[in-house]
Amino acid sequence: MDKATPLRLGIAGLGTVGAGVIKILEHNAELLALRAKRPVKVTAVSARDKTRDRGVDLSAVQWVDSPVDLASRDDVDVVIELMGGAEGAARQLCEKALANKKHVITANKALIAHHGTALAKTAEENNVSLAFEAAVAGGIPIIKSLKEGLGANRFTRICGILNGTCNYILTCMAKEGRSFDDVLKEAQELGYAEADPSFDIDGVDTAHKLAILSALAYGIPVDINATYIEGIRHIGLEDIRHAEELGYKIKLLGICGETAHGIEQRVHPCMVPVDSPIASVDGVFNAVLAQGNYVGKTMFEGPGAGQGATASAVVADILDIANNRASLPFNTPIAALKPRGFAPMDKRYGAYYVRLVVVDRPGVMADIANILREETISMESLLQKARKPEEPVDLVMTTHETTEQAMMRAMKRVVELDTVREKPRLIRIEVI
Amino acid sequence: MDKATPLRLGIAGLGTVGAGVIKILEHNAELLALRAKRPVKVTAVSARDKTRDRGVDLSAVQWVDSPVDLASRDDVDVVIELMGGAEGAARQLCEKALANKKHVITANKALIAHHGTALAKTAEENNVSLAFEAAVAGGIPIIKSLKEGLGANRFTRICGILNGTCNYILTCMAKEGRSFDDVLKEAQELGYAEADPSFDIDGVDTAHKLAILSALAYGIPVDINATYIEGIRHIGLEDIRHAEELGYKIKLLGICGETAHGIEQRVHPCMVPVDSPIASVDGVFNAVLAQGNYVGKTMFEGPGAGQGATASAVVADILDIANNRASLPFNTPIAALKPRGFAPMDKRYGAYYVRLVVVDRPGVMADIANILREETISMESLLQKARKPEEPVDLVMTTHETTEQAMMRAMKRVVELDTVREKPRLIRIEVI
Repeated sequence: MDKATPLRLGIAGLGTVGAGVIKILEHNAELLALRAKRPVKVTAVSARDKTRDRGVDLSAVQWVDSPVDLASRDDVDVVIELMGGAEGAARQLCEKALANKKHVITANKALIAHHGTALAKTAEENNVSLAFEAAVAGGIPIIKSLKEGLGANRFTRICGILNGTCNYILTCMAKEGRSFDDVLKEAQELGYAEADPSFDIDGVDTAHKLAILSALAYGIPVDINATYIEGIRHIGLEDIRHAEELGYKIKLLGICGETAHGIEQRVHPCMVPVDSPIASVDGVFNAVLAQGNYVGKTMFEGPGAGQGATASAVVADILDIANNRASLPFNTPIAALKPRGFAPMDKRYGAYYVRLVVVDRPGVMADIANILREETISMESLLQKARKPEEPVDLVMTTHETTEQAMMRAMKRVVELDTVREKPRLIRIEVI
Repeated sequence: MDKATPLRLGIAGLGTVGAGVIKILEHNAELLALRAKRPVKVTAVSARDKTRDRGVDLSAVQWVDSPVDLASRDDVDVVIELMGGAEGAARQLCEKALANKKHVITANKALIAHHGTALAKTAEENNVSLAFEAAVAGGIPIIKSLKEGLGANRFTRICGILNGTCNYILTCMAKEGRSFDDVLKEAQELGYAEADPSFDIDGVDTAHKLAILSALAYGIPVDINATYIEGIRHIGLEDIRHAEELGYKIKLLGICGETAHGIEQRVHPCMVPVDSPIASVDGVFNAVLAQGNYVGKTMFEGPGAGQGATASAVVADILDIANNRASLPFNTPIAALKPRGFAPMDKRYGAYYVRLVVVDRPGVMADIANILREETISMESLLQKARKPEEPVDLVMTTHETTEQAMMRAMKRVVELDTVREKPRLIRIEVI
């Protein structure tokens, strides 16, 4: 395509991010013209509400009633899908646009986590781009960095704080000493958490993003179903306090890596050493720590959500397409993506934090210690708080490295002891 | 060029980094073949010592006596310059290679800081790439991130820990309570610092890297001469201790930004709040904090030097060229680079830390306070240690925001007081 030919965008969804993209194109127009090396303009949009004031000038664009119709317009070279949802109109629009030889940019992690490989195949067959920088870690250019900037490396491990809502909640609990429920309620009032928060706090959102990173890092088809997922609902203020005493911070991490048992893909709260770089990433910030076999450890930190940050990632994809430099969606031809087998969660090998609520009675400790010994789990530290005979107390321990399987067996037996009063709270310790 | 046509590399300089590049190409060959989408091979090399064992197989490559001859070989598509030095063979090789329509990759920050614009012009005229990811912050893909991943943004400010040697020295001083000279000597023995360390510790290396980042961020020709440069020789252990008491850490930063007086480009030790993300980047690690007008604050952290990290960046540039996706050296056509005027250092506006060694005598404080008042500098805190009449003591103060000009005038007058015994130690406080 000629360098003077404008790149014409069709945007589906004019919520926060869609309006943000138009703002950037407008306000940073002069420098984008230099960086894109050709004019970029929005020609068509589709959104539910035509009348809402979005703070941007839409007088010159065509309004399209059905978003899927953007896929067939002659005046659109790139479809930008910002509606969300793994199915329905978003999926249809992207499939159809790619089949019609239009580039697709999307911020939709659920769509890519569920249908990324199939969509990439359609893109490849039609020789167009499928780009989704905004789908993972908001404004942080982590997808480009894994594919290109760190492309020389085989990745041994990638860990990320990928959900700002969870990180905000955990940070507030730690800094302000408030309960999970209390902070969640406030986050909902402030608009940091959805009315139905389960997608965020149960780890699903993190799992979507992790599955995408894992596919990129390991050259495998995206597979959200292979992910172990555990959220942060069960984290108590006590756990946060104990973590501090033990020299850890609690973070919800997505972790993928190469192990002897296959590729691991897991999302759960972790205790990370307080001096680890990821431990100091607080509030709504996201961070990704990528470990490459040559580069070593690199960390990328920044805003994981918000209008400006997410729109910045979408516009980065636009610049790549304008410059004809977009890399393949998963960095290798689809035919070269190889399922490599996933490591089952019970093969996880590492240390554990366990908090038990026990009745403080002679023999409690001996019962628990016996179970651990029989499962060949060795204790690293033990903390018992506020003794009052016959009253429930917190018994906190950390273990040396062991397998998830042994730990689960031990917990199953521990919970059957009549001195143990609540479900054990277990948090995996990750040395990163 | 056909996708099956191999990309042929000529490497000048087979020191640590050169050998590292060959190792990566060898050991990560399988995944690089997928990511490069065509074969990549080293066809020619030039290095002083042919016999040294570098741990890599060089049996199939041509040895060239004069590195500059790599620029004229028919079997070389990309010249990789890893010799170093702003002039001489490195410069000649790059100029000639670009003129001969060969792509150039270099890790040479001095060369790019001094001749980057001219080289980029030659590259542009000959329609080839000039890539230098390895020249700044080692393995961190900061150049690609500023140009592409964050390309949607106008950058309001960029700050970086860009020299691992300085950061290592400052970290050791703080953690082990050892003097500058002592730590420097050890760093030299360990190979972290050169026999002649002035390039690193006087801030010149940081200035080279900063000038490159500034050119990329602000669309200006690279201008190392516009940089204010101050190193870390004058940092005492006392300053590090006082910083800790005041809630700061001392880091050597390169800072560029847009100000009302023009683009600022400065390298000097800074006190940064201990909870700032850059404060926790310790040891030989580098970090760059980029603030964009839409993305907000993002930080990139990783190893700034070393074989694997630097070679990883060189290979990233190879992948870009293999995929025909290399962006313009300075992200905009050379004709569009515009000198924008630099802010003189005396316009710097911010807070200051000052340590004076004074004789503890009545009236000392009044004299100093009067001078500050006359220069309209207001004190934020004052710390005086270990009083013994008539003996020199440390007088430590921090100011509210003021101009560098006022501060320099005040210090000139302060130093003339007969109660002030040493040159004032002044460290700028940066809120980042």
